[in-house]
Amino acid sequence: MTSQDNFTVDPWQIVEHTLDLTGPARAESVFALSNGHIGLRGNLDEGEPHGLPGTYLNGVFELRPLPYGEAGYGYPESSQSVINVTNGKIIRLLVDDEPFDLRYGELHGHSRTLDFREGVLRRQVEWTSPAGRTVRVTSARLVSLTQRAVTAVDYRVEAVDGPVRIVLQSELVANEQLPQAGAGDPRAAAALEAPLIGEAAHAAGTKAVLVHRTRYSGIRVAAGMDHLIEGPGRLDSTAESTDDQGRISVTTVLSPGEPLRLVKFIAYGWSATRSLPAVRDQVEAALTAARYTGWDGLAAEQSQYLRSFWDASDIEIEGDVELQQAVRFAIFHVLQAGARSEERAIPAKGLTGPGYDGHSFWDTEAFVLPVLTYCLPAAVNQALRWRHTTLPLARERATQLGLAGAVFPWRTIRGEECSGYWPAGSAAFHIGADIASAVVRYIRATGDLQFEREYGLELLVETARMWRSLGHHDAIGRFRIEGVTGPDEYSAIADNNVYTNLMAQTNLRAAAEAATRNPDEAAALGVDTEEAAAWRDAARAMFIPFDANLGVHPQADGFTDHQLWDFEHTPPEKYPLLLHYPYFDLYRKQVVKQADLVLAMQVRGDAFTAEQKARNFAYYERLTVRDSSLSACTQAVIAAEVGQLDLAYDYTAEAALMDLHNLGGNTGDGLHMASLAGACIALVAGFGGVRDQGEHLSFRPRLPAGLRRLTFSMLVREKLVQIAITHSGTTYTLRQGTELKFSHDGEELLVKAGRPVHRPTLAPPPQERCVQPPGREPARRHAQPGVASGGTVGSGPDHLAAE
Amino acid sequence: MTSQDNFTVDPWQIVEHTLDLTGPARAESVFALSNGHIGLRGNLDEGEPHGLPGTYLNGVFELRPLPYGEAGYGYPESSQSVINVTNGKIIRLLVDDEPFDLRYGELHGHSRTLDFREGVLRRQVEWTSPAGRTVRVTSARLVSLTQRAVTAVDYRVEAVDGPVRIVLQSELVANEQLPQAGAGDPRAAAALEAPLIGEAAHAAGTKAVLVHRTRYSGIRVAAGMDHLIEGPGRLDSTAESTDDQGRISVTTVLSPGEPLRLVKFIAYGWSATRSLPAVRDQVEAALTAARYTGWDGLAAEQSQYLRSFWDASDIEIEGDVELQQAVRFAIFHVLQAGARSEERAIPAKGLTGPGYDGHSFWDTEAFVLPVLTYCLPAAVNQALRWRHTTLPLARERATQLGLAGAVFPWRTIRGEECSGYWPAGSAAFHIGADIASAVVRYIRATGDLQFEREYGLELLVETARMWRSLGHHDAIGRFRIEGVTGPDEYSAIADNNVYTNLMAQTNLRAAAEAATRNPDEAAALGVDTEEAAAWRDAARAMFIPFDANLGVHPQADGFTDHQLWDFEHTPPEKYPLLLHYPYFDLYRKQVVKQADLVLAMQVRGDAFTAEQKARNFAYYERLTVRDSSLSACTQAVIAAEVGQLDLAYDYTAEAALMDLHNLGGNTGDGLHMASLAGACIALVAGFGGVRDQGEHLSFRPRLPAGLRRLTFSMLVREKLVQIAITHSGTTYTLRQGTELKFSHDGEELLVKAGRPVHRPTLAPPPQERCVQPPGREPARRHAQPGVASGGTVGSGPDHLAAE
Repeated sequence: MTSQDNFTVDPWQIVEHTLDLTGPARAESVFALSNGHIGLRGNLDEGEPHGLPGTYLNGVFELRPLPYGEAGYGYPESSQSVINVTNGKIIRLLVDDEPFDLRYGELHGHSRTLDFREGVLRRQVEWTSPAGRTVRVTSARLVSLTQRAVTAVDYRVEAVDGPVRIVLQSELVANEQLPQAGAGDPRAAAALEAPLIGEAAHAAGTKAVLVHRTRYSGIRVAAGMDHLIEGPGRLDSTAESTDDQGRISVTTVLSPGEPLRLVKFIAYGWSATRSLPAVRDQVEAALTAARYTGWDGLAAEQSQYLRSFWDASDIEIEGDVELQQAVRFAIFHVLQAGARSEERAIPAKGLTGPGYDGHSFWDTEAFVLPVLTYCLPAAVNQALRWRHTTLPLARERATQLGLAGAVFPWRTIRGEECSGYWPAGSAAFHIGADIASAVVRYIRATGDLQFEREYGLELLVETARMWRSLGHHDAIGRFRIEGVTGPDEYSAIADNNVYTNLMAQTNLRAAAEAATRNPDEAAALGVDTEEAAAWRDAARAMFIPFDANLGVHPQADGFTDHQLWDFEHTPPEKYPLLLHYPYFDLYRKQVVKQADLVLAMQVRGDAFTAEQKARNFAYYERLTVRDSSLSACTQAVIAAEVGQLDLAYDYTAEAALMDLHNLGGNTGDGLHMASLAGACIALVAGFGGVRDQGEHLSFRPRLPAGLRRLTFSMLVREKLVQIAITHSGTTYTLRQGTELKFSHDGEELLVKAGRPVHRPTLAPPPQERCVQPPGREPARRHAQPGVASGGTVGSGPDHLAAE
Repeated sequence: MTSQDNFTVDPWQIVEHTLDLTGPARAESVFALSNGHIGLRGNLDEGEPHGLPGTYLNGVFELRPLPYGEAGYGYPESSQSVINVTNGKIIRLLVDDEPFDLRYGELHGHSRTLDFREGVLRRQVEWTSPAGRTVRVTSARLVSLTQRAVTAVDYRVEAVDGPVRIVLQSELVANEQLPQAGAGDPRAAAALEAPLIGEAAHAAGTKAVLVHRTRYSGIRVAAGMDHLIEGPGRLDSTAESTDDQGRISVTTVLSPGEPLRLVKFIAYGWSATRSLPAVRDQVEAALTAARYTGWDGLAAEQSQYLRSFWDASDIEIEGDVELQQAVRFAIFHVLQAGARSEERAIPAKGLTGPGYDGHSFWDTEAFVLPVLTYCLPAAVNQALRWRHTTLPLARERATQLGLAGAVFPWRTIRGEECSGYWPAGSAAFHIGADIASAVVRYIRATGDLQFEREYGLELLVETARMWRSLGHHDAIGRFRIEGVTGPDEYSAIADNNVYTNLMAQTNLRAAAEAATRNPDEAAALGVDTEEAAAWRDAARAMFIPFDANLGVHPQADGFTDHQLWDFEHTPPEKYPLLLHYPYFDLYRKQVVKQADLVLAMQVRGDAFTAEQKARNFAYYERLTVRDSSLSACTQAVIAAEVGQLDLAYDYTAEAALMDLHNLGGNTGDGLHMASLAGACIALVAGFGGVRDQGEHLSFRPRLPAGLRRLTFSMLVREKLVQIAITHSGTTYTLRQGTELKFSHDGEELLVKAGRPVHRPTLAPPPQERCVQPPGREPARRHAQPGVASGGTVGSGPDHLAAE
């Protein structure tokens, strides 16, 4: 039972039984381990063969020049690229006198397993060397969720059919050669080729530490390792170091049944300001603590952390085991991205690969944080505090652009704008409102008023100021926001993008309300009643275009007058369109890369009537090609709302399988965190019908024919409510706390501890399925057999481009 | 009596009596000589001191990479930059043992004179060396308008107060060090630093030839020189050459009254395809011919050519001698740019400097060719044939952009798109219609039906095809052109730009009409009656937006709804705006860099009522900041049409003085050909009221108070009509041909040879002067004294940015 060639379908784990030597990068992303602070790609212990070796530290980047053929005022001069830092996961193995390398010799067995409840990547290999010696290697690797600076490997090797001489070289390697650094721009490549300058190297006993500094960005990075070695007979070990290498070598002769075990503890520390001894000591302290805890201790902490996490965060699905697996995979990786990012950004690919240069976009606030808010709110607090730390840079950018308040960067690692193409970068001002919306959601879901006072208010105020200065009142008093780019990247520089205007409206109102709640803090930020009144007034007067002829909302002024994209004559190989058609043509026609107006209907459902939602959805379905990974989940949510449940189911599966099935073709560069989060949103906001824009949550459960049961929980102000939906009814159970108010299909409910509430699950009236552009229909998800007989392969279209 | 510091006001020449050692680049542009084939900046004979040494050959360029921070489909990968080729104008002088260098010693007298009737740059210097030796140098330089490969220098030196030993080194220098190559991009700088690779070098007797090839673009360039040497007593000469230098040295001892004369003939040949011997022989043949003609012969040919040119081309002004000088300067340089460009482009700066990388834009067809059409139509024929040679590239570009027909490049030397910023480059599709319009004008003015058949028709057909595929019919049948950029570079990617749509309409109609006139040739191009009907239909249905509330035409859809630029709070030092504000902000607000809707009213006056013209003009005057050199002339024309004659006069002077007064601050990079041509347009189309969109010319003469008389001639189908306008009346005289039809103030007139027609010159009713953005008013041009007492300084604002 395989899912998309070599991953086994299993509700709680990803298992691989064959090694894909032709394209190993994809599995390296899927098996990546991270805690949001440190990320290790799922490279083999021995380092090679590899697709893309990767060890990432959140916030460690190098600067590279951003060139322009024709420059302009305010264009950023340099970008930030995540770099592959000192690789600590390498354990090379010499079998007699041959390196253990799976490209040679004979592989008898291979498996890798990532268990979502354990948080450990396990590997088993049995291999015969070209000279005929057979060994069995077992390893387990974790990136600790409880000791954020620590990763560890439990490595065992044993002889199978006769004595072998073994050498293990456990290494730290800096400035590894990469297969594809900075492709496209030779200057960028040069900057990123060997980004680390050695500052200190030390090895003794079982321990080694390397300290480096990045050449241009000046970030100091220390990597250390320590080892426990257990084995039979005589064991020799040596310690060596050079600038770019630390190595502990262990030699012995093994007879069958006498394994050699190496437990490797690896720790990282980095800082742009602290001294070399400080950073080195931090690493050595982490190593000491890890060694004290030991492998078993670290593994136990890990599974305890995850047990607690899954208890509040699991989404259980009956009727589609492949979707079940994909959703848990998604939740697990979203957790890995956000768990310990701690005042650093959550990048679009987490720490699973170098895609998008390691940048964070609006994805984080618009897709990832809405999921974490209701299961791991502390991570959201940290992520928004990171945004808060970048406020000085965002204010500077606003000043440079002639605006008030703060303009957050379209893409960044540390906070500086890194987009050199402003029509799809700086002009996408909606990111300000996306951040504000995440702030409002977090505060509403947690009641964390201290956060509001200390961080949230300022984020709301500075973004509201930006909107007030970006827009203007026209001659008849409407507040207009012109020349901006909404979520859809196949449009740019348009007037009154509905998503942007509605989100700005929310942002302006939220700032005014927060200022009223926190008058002293607001006054300290210079907000007076006149300013707050100006925000409320702009929000009230916000212009939302509507095409009365067609009875739909144009995505932005004039959009529905534009020429329709010639879908009929666009062959399948021309997708994603951006790689085959010029932007000028995409921008001026009716063709949508990703949900834009449809996303507005999700996040601001109150601004649309039910009839408008249905008409709008049908209209934009015909135009939306999903060349972005940030679309299917939103389409799933609104499809469910307008009663297109089967279509919603198809989109949910597409979002969930984006990386497991490599639908965007670029999973090898890292996983798509927002799409993974989007899979959860599709289920919760789509089939659960959850909306959180009002004071209380509202539910509107609808189940597609393909699912028998959907169960999930939400943490709201420390109350944990579980929702279990079947076709016949929905049950709300309060698992933590005393009582919680919410609404179900418009009916106000109060659920109390120990007194589950049951309501019938409604089914929408049958209707015609909405139509997509030819060839861009989502793969139909057929009714799935139960867990017992396993899921079939739901392979989606393989040509979707990722965001 | 000086004009803008050091140029004397004189109706027929530019005279300089002091040498500006702090910023010599400006005078080097003003004194540049060119025939459109070869261009020499006005560098001193001895090479230094210089602002920017420059020798340019039309079509000789080097490739340089066009980098992108974020690349996109269809972005050009390289650009073309004009290069400074082998410098042949250097004659170094050693006085005893000191180099003649005006930075040292004592300068007793200096003058340079460029006479527009002679076409020769004359120089006189008297100088005492630091060691006390005094010499007088007299030189004359020309770039032949009759022998296009030839330039020549007549150089004389004499001792003033005692015998001196003289060494003259007459040189060819390749790969000269430049003060500012490729500033901004180190890779571009590297590509342009020493672009010439030596292929052959030869020197013997009085002759030397160097042959080079450009590194990336592969263009072979040969430069040769030969000399006549006349002097007293013993004259020694030697000939030497290295890869990058050819040198003929002459030594003698001069006593006062015994001048040494060196006549230097320089010839250039270049080709991307021909062999080394072929190119070298071509140069040697040109030298032989030049030597045969001799200096006096070349000078005589030159002045004869110019006598004939001025006879048909002069614009005489009474009442403002400074403007008279400026306009003749303008006409002279437009002639120099276009006279012998011969199937090569006319760059925006002619061959006077490296500004804009030596690229040609729409300027040529929209500003330069309209002037040349009525005085030097053969040059227009050549210029449009150059465009025709680029059709294969333009078709390729259209295919790449998913369009039919041909898309001409926004900026280019050889025909490839060289703009890396598509919102202001490729999206400015109007260039296609500008070319078509120049074709129509040329054919109408000359009756050259052979050109129409062989070149014009295909240009019209391929541009019409482009428009038909770029636009579309909307639900109510209007033909819309969306997502394009009009002439105003402070707007981009807008829908239904009025200028673009009206020009496209003309283009579509003209193509259909030309196809009807030339059925066989049209059929050969694949045009059938259905296609022509589709063009006519699109033209008929062309959508022209109008803002009924304001009673004005928006520049493009929605323009008049946009926020007004905050002119009140834009201080003078923030102009040009593009250097101080981000494009996103300029694009989304009502602020206009250069005439756009106002230009539409000039070239498609038939599409507007008189009342609309007045209202539109007043509306856009308030928004137009003239950060481009391509604005004042158009504003002059429409100001005159709507009766704002004083304002028109001010704008005319601004256009005419753009370079002489360095109003854009970048005359040093080369002269602004389109603005110079625009000064002529301002006078002819403005005060003469000439329009040429109908079958016959129409005139509507109006004279501002500042001018007493305006006289100009126009060549129409080999008939030369002279128009003389005074405040009391206008006289039309046919100077060549038998009769000509045209209209005067709407009245049809037929003027016959020997029978001048006189009509009263009308004066518009007095009206309030239109208002410009604060601080952006054109300098008021006060009534000027006559020639006898000379003109006063009309110094315009010094902060205008050039196009």
